[in-house]
Amino acid sequence: MENQNHIRYGLLDREDLCSAIKTMSKENLDELCAEIRQFLLEHVSQTGGHLASNLGVVELTVALHRCFDTAEDRLIFDVGHQCYTHKLLTGRRAGFDALRQFGGMSGFLKPEESPHDPCITGHASGSVSVALGMAHARTLQHRDYSVVAVIGDGALTGGMAYEALNSAGGSGEPLIVVLNDNNMSIDKNVGAMSRHLSRLRVRPHYLQMKKDVKTALGHIPGGEGAVNLISRSKRAVKSVVLPSPMFEEMGFTYLGPVDGHDVLAMCQLFQSAREMNKPVLIHVMTRKGKGYSYAEQKPEKYHGVSKFDVETGLPLKKSAPNFSAVFGAELVKLAQENPKICAVTAAMPSGTGLSAFSKRYPDRFFDVGIAEEHAVAMSAGMAKQGMRPVCALYSTFLQRSYDQLIHDVAIDHIPLVLAIDRAGIVGEDGATHNGVFDVGFLRQIPGMTLLAPASFAELRSMLRSAVAHLSGPIALRYPRGGEGAYTEDHSEGPDACLREGTDIVLVSYGTMINQTLEAAEILNKNNVISAVVKLNDLTADFSAGLLQRIADCGRVAVVEDVVHAGGMGQALAETLARSGIATRWIRLCNTGDTFAPQGAVSRIYEYYHLDGNGIAATCLEAMQHEKETGRPSV
Amino acid sequence: MENQNHIRYGLLDREDLCSAIKTMSKENLDELCAEIRQFLLEHVSQTGGHLASNLGVVELTVALHRCFDTAEDRLIFDVGHQCYTHKLLTGRRAGFDALRQFGGMSGFLKPEESPHDPCITGHASGSVSVALGMAHARTLQHRDYSVVAVIGDGALTGGMAYEALNSAGGSGEPLIVVLNDNNMSIDKNVGAMSRHLSRLRVRPHYLQMKKDVKTALGHIPGGEGAVNLISRSKRAVKSVVLPSPMFEEMGFTYLGPVDGHDVLAMCQLFQSAREMNKPVLIHVMTRKGKGYSYAEQKPEKYHGVSKFDVETGLPLKKSAPNFSAVFGAELVKLAQENPKICAVTAAMPSGTGLSAFSKRYPDRFFDVGIAEEHAVAMSAGMAKQGMRPVCALYSTFLQRSYDQLIHDVAIDHIPLVLAIDRAGIVGEDGATHNGVFDVGFLRQIPGMTLLAPASFAELRSMLRSAVAHLSGPIALRYPRGGEGAYTEDHSEGPDACLREGTDIVLVSYGTMINQTLEAAEILNKNNVISAVVKLNDLTADFSAGLLQRIADCGRVAVVEDVVHAGGMGQALAETLARSGIATRWIRLCNTGDTFAPQGAVSRIYEYYHLDGNGIAATCLEAMQHEKETGRPSV
Repeated sequence: MENQNHIRYGLLDREDLCSAIKTMSKENLDELCAEIRQFLLEHVSQTGGHLASNLGVVELTVALHRCFDTAEDRLIFDVGHQCYTHKLLTGRRAGFDALRQFGGMSGFLKPEESPHDPCITGHASGSVSVALGMAHARTLQHRDYSVVAVIGDGALTGGMAYEALNSAGGSGEPLIVVLNDNNMSIDKNVGAMSRHLSRLRVRPHYLQMKKDVKTALGHIPGGEGAVNLISRSKRAVKSVVLPSPMFEEMGFTYLGPVDGHDVLAMCQLFQSAREMNKPVLIHVMTRKGKGYSYAEQKPEKYHGVSKFDVETGLPLKKSAPNFSAVFGAELVKLAQENPKICAVTAAMPSGTGLSAFSKRYPDRFFDVGIAEEHAVAMSAGMAKQGMRPVCALYSTFLQRSYDQLIHDVAIDHIPLVLAIDRAGIVGEDGATHNGVFDVGFLRQIPGMTLLAPASFAELRSMLRSAVAHLSGPIALRYPRGGEGAYTEDHSEGPDACLREGTDIVLVSYGTMINQTLEAAEILNKNNVISAVVKLNDLTADFSAGLLQRIADCGRVAVVEDVVHAGGMGQALAETLARSGIATRWIRLCNTGDTFAPQGAVSRIYEYYHLDGNGIAATCLEAMQHEKETGRPSV
Repeated sequence: MENQNHIRYGLLDREDLCSAIKTMSKENLDELCAEIRQFLLEHVSQTGGHLASNLGVVELTVALHRCFDTAEDRLIFDVGHQCYTHKLLTGRRAGFDALRQFGGMSGFLKPEESPHDPCITGHASGSVSVALGMAHARTLQHRDYSVVAVIGDGALTGGMAYEALNSAGGSGEPLIVVLNDNNMSIDKNVGAMSRHLSRLRVRPHYLQMKKDVKTALGHIPGGEGAVNLISRSKRAVKSVVLPSPMFEEMGFTYLGPVDGHDVLAMCQLFQSAREMNKPVLIHVMTRKGKGYSYAEQKPEKYHGVSKFDVETGLPLKKSAPNFSAVFGAELVKLAQENPKICAVTAAMPSGTGLSAFSKRYPDRFFDVGIAEEHAVAMSAGMAKQGMRPVCALYSTFLQRSYDQLIHDVAIDHIPLVLAIDRAGIVGEDGATHNGVFDVGFLRQIPGMTLLAPASFAELRSMLRSAVAHLSGPIALRYPRGGEGAYTEDHSEGPDACLREGTDIVLVSYGTMINQTLEAAEILNKNNVISAVVKLNDLTADFSAGLLQRIADCGRVAVVEDVVHAGGMGQALAETLARSGIATRWIRLCNTGDTFAPQGAVSRIYEYYHLDGNGIAATCLEAMQHEKETGRPSV
């Protein structure tokens, strides 16, 4: 098997691969790219991961490594999920066996993994900002390495990218931005910029075009005069040759478009860009999923994949029903009843379960691109004029809209419904993607209501209440994936007691209730009988019933999948302290003051003692300590 | 005096002013604008407020009211501090006597004040998003009012504005964006977009230009052929006539530039825009401070003013030394010692005290425009490559960078220094400008250090420590304005006991320590002897000394100028509860779960019982309750 590998990966096996690339023949480069594709398919099909985006940038990454030395030059992949070839070329081939697994290699850029990874990536549209900062540092330090940001056309819909282009173009700082244009975000791309790029795409190559037009004008009587009249400067000539020079206006020299699957053609432009010593944007056209027909045909389906059969393209495990789908289906129902309901998302129609809605109610569906700030403020405008927008975003990306939630929504009591998908631990994508701050940052906002459905049935009920809630903003947070053993609906009231017991009160919310109930079972076997209380509304005052229960029992553990500060544990402990309710002990089970590592969600729960066993162990340890010392313990 | 007023404000006094404008003669319009300027100067010089921006948009606002009916059409002023003429024309003249005062009229758009104000404004760059949401709602409801966003060229550097233009242009939704181009943010404008606008500014009027060029080409033999070759569509012709049609590429029809002090010329374009029934951008050129020579010459100085003498232009009270200036001066010193230190700000060089730095170290000074997301991520890139960036932002605008602080800074332990100006209650600007969330949202971020200097001396010491802190991000929060009676430096260690006492422990931080010390004095007079502990580091664990002190005393009040959730009071109460430290009572003094109203800072402290008297009264009430009931009380 090993031998077979060696035969198949003749070029990939070279120890000096990174330097060899710099002088490789065209034939060998093509062969290398084919090997890389083969490698990616074999491995990602076995581990899961990002597929289509990585297949799309094989040649682009090889070309970048041919022209730049990433040990010194800084190469930033925006979002970063397209960095697999880069990892492969920088000595991390072995890491693919445990890609995205607990303790394994990250699926994104990660400086602690390699000096070839200049910064953390995970969220979109930030690469040009970080690159510009690095370029400024380089210039101030009188050094001469290159800084290159590779950004997709999808990420270009994010305002942050524009802020950075504006700042870079204004400063004139030498910097290379490679626009990886595949005409896709995770889903189809939207907005005016996307149309702009479409127009650029159909043009012949820049340098060729320039020559042709000059020649053509020369042959027309008076043609030269016309050029003189309408375009006095070199800049203006360029804008005739290249209609729509948006990037030129931003202070960038625009090169392209160039075939993103032709290594040598790209290298030519990279070399020119480096020599220009100013901000340059190179427009590279790639095909998402390139080389794997299933992925080429349905790139959005093969964007992020679980293990699959390479031959058939089919996943090895059938995907289970999930909260996103339940949300989407219920919203379609509600929209049928109420013509005011609209759905807003930021480049995540499939991820948030809104595909069906978008087809059923296209007029009431708004995908604004990777633009969370705009999504929230636009929704506020719709709500203000009497519509009922439901804005569906991932928890981690909602961090981008924090100011808009305060400024455009909460101060004016705008009845916006926020559907917060991927709340809590998200898993293999790691620290950049977990939704572990939302409880804290939303609870801070005056007038915000935050609900935590724990089952599909509760999501349906709570969504129904949310769209009827007109006194201010209301948010629902629910995790990636499906429901657990708990499938009931106890969504009435601020909390619900699911299990009686007088030894310990276990408090939790959302799907964490499953592990909490498990812990209660385990404790039961240890003759510790615990009550389990599920919080429904994370912004309501704690109920008198819950406080009394804790006062009577004297022992409480709060279980949640968010950071410690700002969480419900802190809030409950505070309320107990202020109410003068003394306890024998309080245990707050959460992700602490840390960024969670990557790995399967269940593995991360285990890591934080947030699985049934972990929670039970924490409680038993506290009981033991109480017994031994007779005193409360921290 | 009243009579005199009547003589001077002949047109402003008309009861039917808003409808009269629609048919007024050019002479009367000019006269009205002169009266409005006179009124604004007289009133703002007596109350303080935003001056230069309002003087700049008198004719623009009159023109908008001539063409649109703001009771139904939705007119959104981005940022909103330029809405004074709008307020004057919509029946709020009397409000100017208590402009920006407690209980008085807001200096920004505020829906609860008038049906003519469509939404809350205060932060920059969001108007197009909200306007697009309103336009979508309008279309879905089959109504036909116009939606108009007035946005400055400064606000156009914000990515959110680009996200909205991209979304609007992509959708084709009818919408009018008025670009109020005065070539300024609060300070001078920066970036490539600013240069783009400069180029547009020098062109003759759009329609005239189009005609001229067509005529000129017609006269050249072969000219028509040239046009045919290089530009087949109407769009392309336009891009010849109008080089740099950036907004056209964004899907907007671009009209302008037009003189922003010519009411009738603007009205012509507004009418055309309405008829076009698609996204239209009208480029209006105004002069900030127009009509008041001092303000025209130094618009940044007359952006936000306190009371001043109209004749001399000089403020009536000399401005006292403030934290911003101390920060700026100290950073210049530190930069002298350490060539790695850079300063980054988002369109606030004067406001954050960085003017001197920008002149002394222009190469190490970076003003990125109104682009907080980019400012933070770019700083991260600089820090990653070995520079020591100090990023100075207002607390309320830092909300825009929440995701970047997590994603681009904290996960990778980037040693970025954040100088958070205008933390806590900011005063007359009201709810949109208070920095009352930073403690909570920063404490959530793993690895973040947050310091709270309480005096100028402490700011100097802490800034010095901060630039030497290399293990991760570190932030300093300090308020608008100057220091109080406390001018010492006890910045060593996590906390400092400033006053001994055993009846109550008063805990506070930052300049709130002044009121807390005052409260201790007042309590003293009531024979209640309290200790006062000042927290220095808001992210460190509470010291054993502090916890012991509270355990011994049993009574604690935590005083802070932020919202309740996520604050230090909550954190301390939680720690006490978990540590099993029982108290007789705990009082958390903060701004609760509310948005603070506008008014002088001291008035707002009073409102929240956060002045010396209020804090003392809260404690005495708790003592009384304890005495009466012998029990803890909430």
